[in-house]
This record gives sequence, C-alpha cells and structure tokens, in this order.
Amino acid sequence: MPEFLTLLPPQEALQALLQRLEPSVTCEEIESAAALGRVTGEAVSAPLPLPSFPRSTVDGYAVRAANTYGASESLPGYLRLIGEVPMGAAPGFSIEPGRGIGSCALIHTGGMLPEGADAVVMVEHTQSVGSDEVEILRAVAVGENVLKVGEDVAQGEQIIPAGVRLRPAEIGGLMALGITRVRVARRPRVGILSSGDEVVPPESDLQPGQVRDVNAFTLSALVESAGGEPVRYGIIPDRVEAMQAAIRRAHAECDLVVVTAGSSASTRDLTAQVMDELGEPGVLVHGVNVRPGKPTILAIAGGKPLIGLPGNPVSALVIAGLFVTPVIAALQGVVRKRPPATVTARLTLNLSSQAGREDWVTVRLLPDAGASSSEAHQVRYQAEPIFGKSNLIFTLAAADGLVRIPPDANGLAAGSLVEVHLL
Amino acid sequence: MPEFLTLLPPQEALQALLQRLEPSVTCEEIESAAALGRVTGEAVSAPLPLPSFPRSTVDGYAVRAANTYGASESLPGYLRLIGEVPMGAAPGFSIEPGRGIGSCALIHTGGMLPEGADAVVMVEHTQSVGSDEVEILRAVAVGENVLKVGEDVAQGEQIIPAGVRLRPAEIGGLMALGITRVRVARRPRVGILSSGDEVVPPESDLQPGQVRDVNAFTLSALVESAGGEPVRYGIIPDRVEAMQAAIRRAHAECDLVVVTAGSSASTRDLTAQVMDELGEPGVLVHGVNVRPGKPTILAIAGGKPLIGLPGNPVSALVIAGLFVTPVIAALQGVVRKRPPATVTARLTLNLSSQAGREDWVTVRLLPDAGASSSEAHQVRYQAEPIFGKSNLIFTLAAADGLVRIPPDANGLAAGSLVEVHLL
Repeated sequence: MPEFLTLLPPQEALQALLQRLEPSVTCEEIESAAALGRVTGEAVSAPLPLPSFPRSTVDGYAVRAANTYGASESLPGYLRLIGEVPMGAAPGFSIEPGRGIGSCALIHTGGMLPEGADAVVMVEHTQSVGSDEVEILRAVAVGENVLKVGEDVAQGEQIIPAGVRLRPAEIGGLMALGITRVRVARRPRVGILSSGDEVVPPESDLQPGQVRDVNAFTLSALVESAGGEPVRYGIIPDRVEAMQAAIRRAHAECDLVVVTAGSSASTRDLTAQVMDELGEPGVLVHGVNVRPGKPTILAIAGGKPLIGLPGNPVSALVIAGLFVTPVIAALQGVVRKRPPATVTARLTLNLSSQAGREDWVTVRLLPDAGASSSEAHQVRYQAEPIFGKSNLIFTLAAADGLVRIPPDANGLAAGSLVEVHLL
Repeated sequence: MPEFLTLLPPQEALQALLQRLEPSVTCEEIESAAALGRVTGEAVSAPLPLPSFPRSTVDGYAVRAANTYGASESLPGYLRLIGEVPMGAAPGFSIEPGRGIGSCALIHTGGMLPEGADAVVMVEHTQSVGSDEVEILRAVAVGENVLKVGEDVAQGEQIIPAGVRLRPAEIGGLMALGITRVRVARRPRVGILSSGDEVVPPESDLQPGQVRDVNAFTLSALVESAGGEPVRYGIIPDRVEAMQAAIRRAHAECDLVVVTAGSSASTRDLTAQVMDELGEPGVLVHGVNVRPGKPTILAIAGGKPLIGLPGNPVSALVIAGLFVTPVIAALQGVVRKRPPATVTARLTLNLSSQAGREDWVTVRLLPDAGASSSEAHQVRYQAEPIFGKSNLIFTLAAADGLVRIPPDANGLAAGSLVEVHLL
C-alpha cells in the first residue's frame, strides 16, 4: 500500500495545520465572575500588593519581637495587654517600645498588625495573667507568624500570563485583587456541517436507508467543552453546489468550519474538493495515519481553518479530540497547554495494531481488585477494550476513555500499564 | 493532642454525611442537545433497533453469498450488475436467486442491503467487466460486511442507565435514536455565603485590615463545573443573628448551603453553632483529619446538607473538591462515578507529612525531559511542589494539580511516582 507512506501521523498533521495558521485573537472584556473556561487575552498584573497590610497568620498576640527575647516555659516574659485587634479594620493603638514591661495586643488570624508590632506569639505559647497581662512562654523572631505587605504578590507582579484558560483558582486570584472585569479571547465560532444523503435530523421519522444526524450534536457538545461556540448548519445534500454554498456560508460566518462526511467515499472526496477551492493554501492534509479517522481533511482558506471529519460517529468524535480541540485552543491564543486528563490502568487484553499507524481504542475502566489506598500512586483501574463491529456511537457511550497505541508498536500486551485519556 | 484522634479522615467524613442524606432527585425534561453535563433522571431505552435496516459496512457489491462460493482470484465468479443502491433510501430492486448467473448491486458504506442480498463483497475483491457484469475475486459468507438490524442496539435495550452524567457520546447516542428530549435531574441550587468581618466584596476599595471575598467566586466556579447552580448570598457579618438569618434563608431556598468561615476561630465556631441549631440531625462532623481543611463542618438539617469550609481560599477550594463536588453529584442521583482526572508524575522533592493525617499538596507539572513518546504509558511529567507561606489563592493559580499524601505515610520521597489530581 504505497498510499500508506504518504499519510502523516496525527501530531505531524496537526502541526502542519497550526504552522500555517496565524490566528488573530479578538478579545472582549467580560465580568471575571463569568470567565470560567475563557482564555486571558492579555497578561494580568497586580494593581496592589497582597497582602496589602501586615497580617497575622495565627491566633495570638501581636508583639515587638525584641520584647520576647529570652522568654521560655521555665522563665516566661510578661507583656501588658493593651487591646484586641478588630477584624477588618486598622487597630486604633500601637505597640510601644516600652521601657519596663512591653505591650501586646490580642490578634486573630488575618488580623492587621498594630503599628510597632513586628511578630505574633501563637496563643498556644502564652498564658493570660489577669485581664491586662500576658505570660509569653516562647520567644519569637522579627517577622514570625506575620505576612509582610506584598509577600504573596508584589505590586505590578504578573499574576496570570496571556493565553491561560481560567479555572476557579484564577478567578479567585482576579477577585483577590479587585479585578472584576477581564479581557479574554472571544469564543471562536465553530460552524458544524453534516453531509451524506442518508443523514436526516434526529427529530425525523426514519425511512428505510436513513440514519439520524449524530455528529452535529456530539461535535457541538465537544466544541462547547473546548471553549468554542458551536453553530450548526444542518445537513448538506451530497451535491457539489449545495456543499459549496453551505461551506462558503459557514466559512464566512465562523472562525473554524468542521464538516463530517457521509459514509461514502465520494462524499468525502467532494468535501475535500470544495474546501480546496475555497482559497489558498487550501487542503494541507488529506488522510491521517490513525485509526479510526484515516480520511481526515485539514485545510486553511482565507486564514481560517477547515476540518473534514469521517462520518462514523466514533471516528468523528475521536478525531475531533485530536484536531478540533487544539485548533479551538489555538484560535483563542492558548499558550499554556494543560495536560490531558488521564487515568493509569492495567490493560485486560492484548491489543494488536499495525506498525506505523497510531490507533485509539475505546476502553471501559473497571476497579482493580488488587488496589489499596495506601500508596500515593498505584494502579486503581483495569482498562477493558470495547469492540463493536460498526463502531456505533454507543461504543463511546459505554466507554470511559481511549488508549493510544503508538505508531512504533505492534500492539500492547495484556497486563501492561496504559494511560487512558478520559472522554 | 488528644483532639487529633477524634478527627475523621476525609473519606469517612464524607460517608458520614452521604449516609444520612436521602436526596429526593427532582427531574425536568430538557432538549437532549442542551443536556451536556446533566445527569439522567431515568434509564433510557432504545425505542427502535440500530441499525434499523441491514447496512453495508464497506464499499462494494451487495450479493447473495451463495452466488460467490468458490470464487477466487484464479477462478473468478461472475455476477450481473443490476443497479446502484442509493444512499438514504431503500433500493428499488432486489437480488434474485438467479438460475444461471446471479445478480449484484453496487453499494456504499452505510447503504441499505437490497432484498435478497445477504452479504457484501468489498470493491477491492472485484473487477468491473463492462457496464453490467462484475468479476468476484473472493467468496463471502452470509452476513459478511453487513450489519444486521439491531446488531448495535436491540429494540428496548437499555442504553443509558439512570444517574449518568451526559458526555458528548451519550448525547450522540440519544440523537441516534431520535430521543431529542431527555429527563434529567434538576441542577441543585447551591447557596454560597462568606463570613468574616474582614471580608469585603471584590469591587470594594480596600481599607486597612480588609481582604476581598475570593471564596464566593472560586466556589461558584467549582459548583458550576460540578453541575450545580451557584446562588451567592454575599458576605455575612460575624454576629449570630446575622448569620442565623442568612443561613436560614439560603437553607430554605437552596438544596445545599456552603459557608466559608472568616479566618478567626470564633467565626468558625459560630458557623457550626448556627448550622447545628437549624434542625436535626445538625452538625455531623466538625473537624476533618486533612491538611489543608481541618476546620471543615458537615451538617444536615431538614434533609438538606450544609458544609462549612475554612476561610483560607486554598483550603476552601481543596476541601470543596473533596466534599462539595461529591455532594452535588449525590443530589443529582449520580450512580456511575467517573474516575477523577489525573496525571502520573515524578515528584521532584521529598514531602513530609504527619502520619495519620491526609495531606493535599499543590504542585506544578513540568515536562519530564527523559520522556519519549514511544510507549503507551510512561511518565511525561515532573510534579514540583509549590510552597507558599500563606497559601494564598495564587498558590493554586500557579498549580496544575494536587498530590494526596495518604494518612498512613510519613511523606513521599523525591523521585516517587504520584497521581496529580488536576485542578
């Protein structure tokens, strides 16, 4: 099969597309509280230091450290109690150097150090003596149990680079600094088209020979999870004019166009032809050395990417994970790629594959009976491959994830450890 | 520290709450296309078989298998070509038994088998002879390259059990069967309250001693990701009447109430007291043997769960992952728990911990230089612990995940493999 040698592996095919893509990320300003999953359009720096006042990290007594030197359980020091630091306000008093006996103030975790104080003695290392004196059972050094101004974040420090997808933690970070609005990349509009004369909308009554459109909906869900905005264009008849019109419209209105082919080879070729005629450079990749998903098409026209996916629902969804998800990230200017979610598992069966081709196999995860919870890392799952004659969508619905068989392997042996990429 | 012995480990504390919780899952019917992340409220069965007609799995010729017996490259069989199966419609002809030469029809992948046909010969194993005859170079058995009616899914077969969170694959499965509306659990309303006199809304100008409310927003984002509907009740002053009023209102209006305490011990105790007075059984757990997060409170009143979280933003978010996320799943009736998203990594440093306590340590993932892509499973990352004096939210914003140090370990050694739970 000489054709075989011309097929690129998926990672190289993706690179071929990304290298030619020069996305200009359009940004918009939105509420930080609604920015979960969005991507920063510019770096965010701290407008103020954090903490913005010297803060106690414990419950105890704010002191001048020098006044505690020498104090111990057997030979306690004594300090005069002059007040309690209120939460949420500056204390109205200060800790004076003091000639004879020094002074101290009750302070809670997070409280603001009074002027003159430079350390906090934990309450566990003190003892009350009447209402106005405290016994100090352990000396503290300057700065002990205190967060200095800017110790967490200095003023002007970059706290979130551009191109970072925001998680709950980043949203919290923005709020901590009072940044209630944030510039993020606009969600890329992803046009989704299905083709194939046999494909009808899900709400249709099926006639003999017809199947319902699955791909438009699995891909919409995937696009949504990936941070894009799915735009469904429905089902295109297998005629060149109809396909040209539909793909042109989606290409004009969207940032990325994804077409799933009908199951026949002629529909796939038609898709490639229409994408290629749309503009320079046209089709970059037609056929990828991966199973499932060999007939994948990657194209760029007028600076916008187009992806042709196989019509089989399992192939379409697996390949969309390999190509559509990273292209959406690129269109949002994602710089910091987070690792994919995986689970390490022990394979239950031998899996054979063709050397030179990358295979993705659907698996179900089962608890590994031998596993205990006593180690930080151990294999808690078995991965059981799911085989289905037709690779219908229910194969994926029954699966927890996918196992990659690398191209330079002839398969994987039962009992070996695999990374299961969670669906 | 005798108090130490009374603290439950996190998993036992969670079980103590879940065992007392008898959530009555309320359902609603929604569009399947909008059901990503929702949880099925009842099992879904197939209203029709799939495929619903006998379908070719290859491009080739539909035949009666008996008419191909004995055919080989050296001694081909000959069949009369009587037509082409249209995509998306029943063929208007049938494959007759035939006296002398049998008949066949061109068919595409996914096409419907004509009446009389019981197998498909792949096009690679045929040769055209003029326009009306086909040379058959390999015999096929009955059923070869054909999907029978119901072979993927039988009519009435359960395809999605109740209590399953819907992913793109399940949504596709529903569409394949024409199920365009689905009964799902209502999103639990999760009331979120912050307390602490030092806490002010993020949009406020900070006065000395004040900090901005971070937890309400990190928790809203987490609740959203977990499938709940966050309802923010703002910041409650540290007074018993104010706290009673606010928690009562949230408890009446929501399915779960989450209160983050101010940083002082008195606020935490106040939270526990108010939760306990709200109804039977009251506070079930006060203090969990985990770091960070020891002051966690778990309560039930009037059948609804309440969770008190530490005020420190890192602790609050880590503990919310351990308790709030699984409680939301329980309120939605989730039966099938998917494995948490993890990455296996090699620890860069020794981590010490106190035996008997479960620790969660924030880590950054770095690519492991020694890793290659030739194996299906290998360690691609190093996990570098992030230490911060105050455990500010930026510790988490800088982190990729959390490493669990089990209670029966005294720590983890540098170089050992750990599972990093992705944030």
